[in-house]
Amino acid sequence: MGGDFAPRAAVDGALAAARAYGYEIVLVGREDAVRTELARHDLGALHVEIQHASDVIGMNELAPAAAIRRSRDNSISRGMALVREGSVEAFVTVGHTGAALAGAMFRLGRAQGVRRPALATPFPTLRGPCVLVDIGANTEVRAEDLLQFALMGASYAESVLGIAAPRVGLVTNGEERGKGSNSVKEALPLLEASHLNFIGNIEGRDIPLGNTDVAVMDGFTGNVLIKFAEGAGALVGQLLREAAGGDAVAALGGILMRRSLQRMRQRMDYRAYGGAVLLGVRGVVIIGHGRSDAEGVKTAVGVAARAVGANLVRTIALGISRIEAEQPEMAS
Amino acid sequence: MGGDFAPRAAVDGALAAARAYGYEIVLVGREDAVRTELARHDLGALHVEIQHASDVIGMNELAPAAAIRRSRDNSISRGMALVREGSVEAFVTVGHTGAALAGAMFRLGRAQGVRRPALATPFPTLRGPCVLVDIGANTEVRAEDLLQFALMGASYAESVLGIAAPRVGLVTNGEERGKGSNSVKEALPLLEASHLNFIGNIEGRDIPLGNTDVAVMDGFTGNVLIKFAEGAGALVGQLLREAAGGDAVAALGGILMRRSLQRMRQRMDYRAYGGAVLLGVRGVVIIGHGRSDAEGVKTAVGVAARAVGANLVRTIALGISRIEAEQPEMAS
Repeated sequence: MGGDFAPRAAVDGALAAARAYGYEIVLVGREDAVRTELARHDLGALHVEIQHASDVIGMNELAPAAAIRRSRDNSISRGMALVREGSVEAFVTVGHTGAALAGAMFRLGRAQGVRRPALATPFPTLRGPCVLVDIGANTEVRAEDLLQFALMGASYAESVLGIAAPRVGLVTNGEERGKGSNSVKEALPLLEASHLNFIGNIEGRDIPLGNTDVAVMDGFTGNVLIKFAEGAGALVGQLLREAAGGDAVAALGGILMRRSLQRMRQRMDYRAYGGAVLLGVRGVVIIGHGRSDAEGVKTAVGVAARAVGANLVRTIALGISRIEAEQPEMAS
Repeated sequence: MGGDFAPRAAVDGALAAARAYGYEIVLVGREDAVRTELARHDLGALHVEIQHASDVIGMNELAPAAAIRRSRDNSISRGMALVREGSVEAFVTVGHTGAALAGAMFRLGRAQGVRRPALATPFPTLRGPCVLVDIGANTEVRAEDLLQFALMGASYAESVLGIAAPRVGLVTNGEERGKGSNSVKEALPLLEASHLNFIGNIEGRDIPLGNTDVAVMDGFTGNVLIKFAEGAGALVGQLLREAAGGDAVAALGGILMRRSLQRMRQRMDYRAYGGAVLLGVRGVVIIGHGRSDAEGVKTAVGVAARAVGANLVRTIALGISRIEAEQPEMAS
């Protein structure tokens, strides 16, 4: 029921994933609305089930955590409950991010040893994707949180994206030791003492240049960064259109380059990676972009399946235990 | 003596500004090195003076504040002293940013009522430049600091960039009230109570989309953002080269678009604005990018002259007084 094109994008995307990969799909939401969308499809041999949830948390809800607590039967909470009880292996939503975070905390809960779950997304760089973590779940963080974000981001990069011994960088304002907020400064020795392939402090430019596989930061910085990248993508697109509209020569060039430029814009769009993964909860939760179309939802379902196949939740739990063993004073 | 192409870029850029605009130039640094560069030029009727400073703070200095305090006679401190004593109207450096900040605090000092000076730079957007403040002078900030950054950034946008009643946005992770770090949440009512043209909370995407004229944030976030933008620019450039190398059709398109694409990359490069302005000290200080060439230095000198002509320091002082009068509990 979430996202800007609900429920059509979710239904179409989920069915496309079912057709392409053979997944069994449970659609969570208002049964009548979902049935109306399903009626447009030939389901054939697809395994599709509906779980009715009477409430919807609106995309513009200003107090999502309160809304989740108040509403006994909304599609987000119902989806999380299905994961919790083991009826499904993953939950995908393109709904309200804050509501999904609250729903996950409330209905799924944190994984053993995890202080704070974090949102992660792959981001395109000069040399393959870089996992940004946290991109918005935690506004204020402590050093121990950053250490756990690093572990969870590395687990994701390794098990889901297939990056062996991923390089982990700590984002700060200057590469030198002693740079950064207090939590960043305190996180540096914790990361150095861990088993992670930690490459030290990095700057913002190291992300698009592909100098790290995991970029660790607080969710305030990460959220500003990812939204900035979205806006910058729109700026680049507009400037490219203007560049191709300058004069007749450039216009012809623009026509000839159109397909390559479209491919380029797709490569630059981090949303093509299918959404953010909520790391550190007791199950696989994917929070796709609210503007996702059916293709975006299909990609998000694929990411969920890869996280399930890679046993991401277990991988993170093992990593957290290992960090606790390395640094017993970290154990929460 | 600072920057990656010292002292040649500084000397060539300063002389180019003198030729183009008629400014009187004082070159601060090792006299022999400066004279060697000057010997390559026909000075004609240009007013050029050398102020010898025996020390240089290296670009890779890891403890710039300590280095500035230790060194009695380096080019940065000497330049700041010239501003302080009124011998020059502005100081431009492309040297070590941290050293320049420390030198300004140590030799120039904060302007009356200013809690913490901040670094600001114009940044290209869909609708003209947006002033980003702070981009690196203050890692941890309080709400009162953000209010002052907003005032100083708006003064800069209005008096130097000529933007009437500039829109001021507070950068946070979500547009809703109640979003953000503690300092951001506390800054919201302070900004609302001020005389500034405050448009409320903004997200990262609002910056490149041109939805605000001034974007206010802590120096940690601002520094990560500006460095990220630098790296993203390199990524876009590389993807454009690849897009033009895809096949014969795209390659021809790339050749035809070359000049427009070059113009586009120049428009996207915030460094073309000539460097950051240090707001809130007792004088005009411009800190250009270390990689600035002579053209970059010339632009930075032009920015310094505009700030002097617009009486930026006085404008900020008046604004700070006005804020203190509006919110007496703010006075530091």
